[in-house]
Amino acid sequence: MKATAIANANVALIKYWGKRNEELILPFNSNIGITCDGLTTRTTVEFSTKYNSYKDHQIIINDEEFNRDEKNVQGQLDRIAGIAGVELKAKVVSETNFPVAAGLASSTSGFAALTLAACEALGLKYSPRDLSILVRQGSGSATRSVMGGFVLWNKGIKPDGTDSFAEELFDKHYWPEFRIIATILNTKKKSIASRAGMSQTVQTCPYFNSWVTSTEIDLLNMRKAINNKNFKLLGETAEFNALKMHATMIASKPAIIYWNSSTINIINMVYKMRAAGIEIYFTIDAGPNVKILCLKKDEIQITKVLKSLKEVIGTISCSLGDGVRLTSEHLF
Amino acid sequence: MKATAIANANVALIKYWGKRNEELILPFNSNIGITCDGLTTRTTVEFSTKYNSYKDHQIIINDEEFNRDEKNVQGQLDRIAGIAGVELKAKVVSETNFPVAAGLASSTSGFAALTLAACEALGLKYSPRDLSILVRQGSGSATRSVMGGFVLWNKGIKPDGTDSFAEELFDKHYWPEFRIIATILNTKKKSIASRAGMSQTVQTCPYFNSWVTSTEIDLLNMRKAINNKNFKLLGETAEFNALKMHATMIASKPAIIYWNSSTINIINMVYKMRAAGIEIYFTIDAGPNVKILCLKKDEIQITKVLKSLKEVIGTISCSLGDGVRLTSEHLF
Repeated sequence: MKATAIANANVALIKYWGKRNEELILPFNSNIGITCDGLTTRTTVEFSTKYNSYKDHQIIINDEEFNRDEKNVQGQLDRIAGIAGVELKAKVVSETNFPVAAGLASSTSGFAALTLAACEALGLKYSPRDLSILVRQGSGSATRSVMGGFVLWNKGIKPDGTDSFAEELFDKHYWPEFRIIATILNTKKKSIASRAGMSQTVQTCPYFNSWVTSTEIDLLNMRKAINNKNFKLLGETAEFNALKMHATMIASKPAIIYWNSSTINIINMVYKMRAAGIEIYFTIDAGPNVKILCLKKDEIQITKVLKSLKEVIGTISCSLGDGVRLTSEHLF
Repeated sequence: MKATAIANANVALIKYWGKRNEELILPFNSNIGITCDGLTTRTTVEFSTKYNSYKDHQIIINDEEFNRDEKNVQGQLDRIAGIAGVELKAKVVSETNFPVAAGLASSTSGFAALTLAACEALGLKYSPRDLSILVRQGSGSATRSVMGGFVLWNKGIKPDGTDSFAEELFDKHYWPEFRIIATILNTKKKSIASRAGMSQTVQTCPYFNSWVTSTEIDLLNMRKAINNKNFKLLGETAEFNALKMHATMIASKPAIIYWNSSTINIINMVYKMRAAGIEIYFTIDAGPNVKILCLKKDEIQITKVLKSLKEVIGTISCSLGDGVRLTSEHLF
């Protein structure tokens, strides 16, 4: 009744922004992400009658009682208990090595680890694909964290979502030189959660349809870039796609501006280094933090420049990592 | 052969971004701006045979030889000389009380004053409407600076542009409480001129068509807001429209990001003051500077807060101003 899973965050190169089905969490677009070996969540789940006196499942993340996206975490645990046919409450203890809810894709590793640990605790066995479908119902992007390396989340076309799953395009050994450097700007939680921001964009942004159609083109370019290890095309496509996503937020009513002054400063630093001949690109998720895309040869120099910026509290350099897996090292 | 004109900058509430005809400068959208009494350009133009030894017209702006948008200024002087049927070179001396080419709409007052002074110097007399058509061919937004108060630039539908002119919706006396406060962030010229940025957006932004169609709705809301002196609707519509314009730039390829870290900080200041109950909104043109929209009752408090921000070098508080006019006080 107790199990522990480890998952890595998956950062999108082609973004997921907008649900065609809110309840099942089905996206308008297929999207592609990288499972990052340095952004890790470890989660222990125990289901037991001894927790049934609690009103809800008990969630502790990084030593704090969790009170954000609470509903989604509770819902996912209820869903899994329902599948297993038990009426039990769970205790969940989770640790991440990076700030949560700051646009660093913490929900991807979080929901992947939570789901696998909860399933294992209740004796449920899934294939990776089916696990990704179950994870998806807790948090969309998290479906990609089930797999390692370069991961495609197929949007699917079926109304029931059974064809909307994660697929490993290439495993973590495919491109050893590939790096993604997360910049830690501040650990303040973002002002609007991704889920709410996404919904507001779908409802109010006049550019939303064009976002969906133009992202299909980006997706083709990204697949081509990955297949050919064409880093320039990969970087340019990732930047274009991320900025287009932020443009839909900025053009929503009311506007959703996740950027802060540091975001702009780091974007300008990337432009400046690139103008100087360094192969450096960026992507930004729903938060102020900027992720740098680069190759191993430039990693040390770029990290040095990043750390020289007063707004950068820290950096986490990642290469391609594994998908979610079980471990016997429990957190309680 | 010598004349001087004064014009006020016109700041758009519904933006002009994108030309349907590059040569005649015809916009995709009708747009609305405010002629601001505090952002002023004075320009003296003299046509004379004594300048004919120069290769080009000689342009001095704020005591500096002008070398930006040079082609457009030269072209406008050639156009006017051509209409008058003379082959003369001009000397132009222009002064502004605010930084040029920093997103403060300096080209609006600049081209309006230049055109009127040049016409007067050569004995050409135009109605305000016809003058606005001539000004438009030098710089699109400048057409609005021909008129005072709230000004509509009709997009027109004719291929020859004869129905694309400025129209005074309400003169400067209509709304005495209305204020627009320009924040001076830095006097650095922007990295990409409006004209080039606009063209790049039309060619590469997948959201451009949606920008055009959604701006038609904003235009109706803005006319309603002005007619009813509904400041809330005016402010909300101006913000939405400005952010939508910047979103098209951000979603262009390569991206055009006029914002800097100060832009974001001031946007957040506006949100914060508004959350505290103050009627404050913003608009941003193609540059980093933010313009604040407010009413007289809040002007002092808002100016105080703006000046407390370390990035704000200065503020210029404007009410509704006059359109372009002649003066006998020459600059040389």
